[in-house]
Amino acid sequence: MQPAITYRLIKKEKHTGARLGEITTPHGTFRTPVFMPVGTQATVKTLAPEELEDMGAGIILANTYHLWLRPGEDIIKQAGGLHKFMNWDHPILTDSGGFQVFSLAKNRDITEQGVTFKNEINGDRMFLSPEKAMQIENDLGPDIMMSLDECPPFFESYDYVKKSVERTSRWAERGLKAHRNPDSQGLFGIVQGAGFEDLRKQSAKDLVSLDFPGYSIGGLSVGESKAEMNRILETTAPLLPENKPRYLMGVGVTDSLIDGVIRGIDMFDCVLPTRIARNGTVMTSHGRLVVKNAAYARDFGPLDDQCDCYACRNYSRAYIHHLIRADETFGMRLASYHNLYYLIHLMKRVQQAILDDNLLDLRQEVFEQYGYNKPNPKNF
Amino acid sequence: MQPAITYRLIKKEKHTGARLGEITTPHGTFRTPVFMPVGTQATVKTLAPEELEDMGAGIILANTYHLWLRPGEDIIKQAGGLHKFMNWDHPILTDSGGFQVFSLAKNRDITEQGVTFKNEINGDRMFLSPEKAMQIENDLGPDIMMSLDECPPFFESYDYVKKSVERTSRWAERGLKAHRNPDSQGLFGIVQGAGFEDLRKQSAKDLVSLDFPGYSIGGLSVGESKAEMNRILETTAPLLPENKPRYLMGVGVTDSLIDGVIRGIDMFDCVLPTRIARNGTVMTSHGRLVVKNAAYARDFGPLDDQCDCYACRNYSRAYIHHLIRADETFGMRLASYHNLYYLIHLMKRVQQAILDDNLLDLRQEVFEQYGYNKPNPKNF
Ligand SMILES: [Zn+2]
Ligand SMILES: [Zn+2]
Repeated sequence: MQPAITYRLIKKEKHTGARLGEITTPHGTFRTPVFMPVGTQATVKTLAPEELEDMGAGIILANTYHLWLRPGEDIIKQAGGLHKFMNWDHPILTDSGGFQVFSLAKNRDITEQGVTFKNEINGDRMFLSPEKAMQIENDLGPDIMMSLDECPPFFESYDYVKKSVERTSRWAERGLKAHRNPDSQGLFGIVQGAGFEDLRKQSAKDLVSLDFPGYSIGGLSVGESKAEMNRILETTAPLLPENKPRYLMGVGVTDSLIDGVIRGIDMFDCVLPTRIARNGTVMTSHGRLVVKNAAYARDFGPLDDQCDCYACRNYSRAYIHHLIRADETFGMRLASYHNLYYLIHLMKRVQQAILDDNLLDLRQEVFEQYGYNKPNPKNF
Repeated sequence: MQPAITYRLIKKEKHTGARLGEITTPHGTFRTPVFMPVGTQATVKTLAPEELEDMGAGIILANTYHLWLRPGEDIIKQAGGLHKFMNWDHPILTDSGGFQVFSLAKNRDITEQGVTFKNEINGDRMFLSPEKAMQIENDLGPDIMMSLDECPPFFESYDYVKKSVERTSRWAERGLKAHRNPDSQGLFGIVQGAGFEDLRKQSAKDLVSLDFPGYSIGGLSVGESKAEMNRILETTAPLLPENKPRYLMGVGVTDSLIDGVIRGIDMFDCVLPTRIARNGTVMTSHGRLVVKNAAYARDFGPLDDQCDCYACRNYSRAYIHHLIRADETFGMRLASYHNLYYLIHLMKRVQQAILDDNLLDLRQEVFEQYGYNKPNPKNF
């Protein structure tokens, strides 16, 4: 049987750990390294599928937790799966719901069997286990699914994280057994271990022995420093098989994307670009810009003078400033479009730099322009 | 000098007062009868200009009052006018701001000179006069502008309405004198007079004597019955010149659109279709449908099985139901798209029926399907 998800390594960059690759799924093939827009509730907030296609998004995410609670995976299954439900005929990835249960849900109670919590919408007690996560994700029908994992806080105690990592490995194995559609959906294991290098190694070893078609690195970008994130990536990525994709969860800022690629990461996602857009903040070649600020009320230039996206080609900072101030969703939509385009196209430049073996030069140029080399740079 | 706005009467329907026509403006020509989407704050809520083009919108509105307060007409003028500011290279119509001052503003004080009120955004005292309205509209730069009028309540006393109508006529004359761009913008006079037929006649006579390039009928669709509206239209429309367009302000429901056309109206606008869409209600061939209701959670059919709009071709009631419940703007956008498409295409059917001299048959068919012939029909 042909596996649902395959990775082809096209080229390694000469001076770093960066990899140019290609992931093939039942809904198409996309190049890596890639940034994936997040469509939490089966919609990338404010945008239509056609706009995501136009901007070059090769794959998008949806959140199992949110869709399980509303509308319910049974409705999406009845609709013919997520692709049909949301009119997106390209690859989709879902998480397992674990991250949301651990970060959002109240009154949660974790045991070997799974985790019990309160449904924030109707107050019901809910139970999520590796088997339940798999049933939901099988019903949702994305191309790539995640195993249920626990994502402990980065600065949790060694003992707790060790127990958690061991349980996450057992959960990964249970998920793999419960997976009903290995021919049409690929399941990734998630490496955890917080900031402890030996636990990261143990987690990676456990999961690799289960032979997943891809591996995620979780529990990063949760408050630790960039140096700590880079250290963990340097420990973890080399332990993952070269012929499988590597996905760093929850990362979507310029510096961490490039630094992640340099350490061998292929896939990234984050809600940040669309979340900040809705509040009137955009990422540009020259750093972040709060277009909502009074300074842009009469600025008739584009959001980013080096960007050729739909928003930058047709609308001014002054117009987007006005729309955001007036709470008009079209302003949020233009800013969201631009931010996603910016990150997707940053990754296309990174892909080219891998081909050209000059990724470190690109890093230097982008960091300089973005303002990361200035004193006290903004986090994004 | 060629006037900025010209109307060409193409054909009158045999059995009614309906007219098929064509209005030519500096930004293009459109057919009438027409329904015009409203873009209050220089954006038709949730939609992009390309979507309005796709659905066949020939002309859109913007609101002078809102744009005067925010961002200010000076910024829009500096941007090169409304068309450039909002990236819409087709006809635009603005109202005078009067309706909003009289219906929204607090602490307003009306004199012969104009009206003083409080700016709801920053608390400033503001003053709107016929000359000021003209300056703002000239700066905004739409193709079609409205004179400043007072819109008294429909059931106001005869004496008050008489004084108000006379003042509105004097204001219309002052506006005409203050108009700086007669070669690139056309100014319409607004017939008022509430439910008093003789005052409507007086208002129409006064304004026609000033020879505007078009005439609006205001002060309707403000709480009076459909029969009262029709009675006033039957009194007023025949007094307006046949070679000028007639615009019934604030009307955007199926029955009133058709009944207005039958009485000789050419142009309509209303925020209703987009406002109800954002709350999860749509207009369909079979009447109104509250897609937000639980009944549609598992309905995988389109909003309207007789509609071929973007929303109906690609998305199900279940998906739009989910998005609206989840407060996702893409759901509001799909419902808004559909509602505007529905009204624009209703008017295209009306245009065809005028050509075919069977508008009363179309009325019967549409009313029957929509449910207006049932007992206690919904208002829309
Ligand atoms: Zn851009
Ligand atoms: Zn439709």
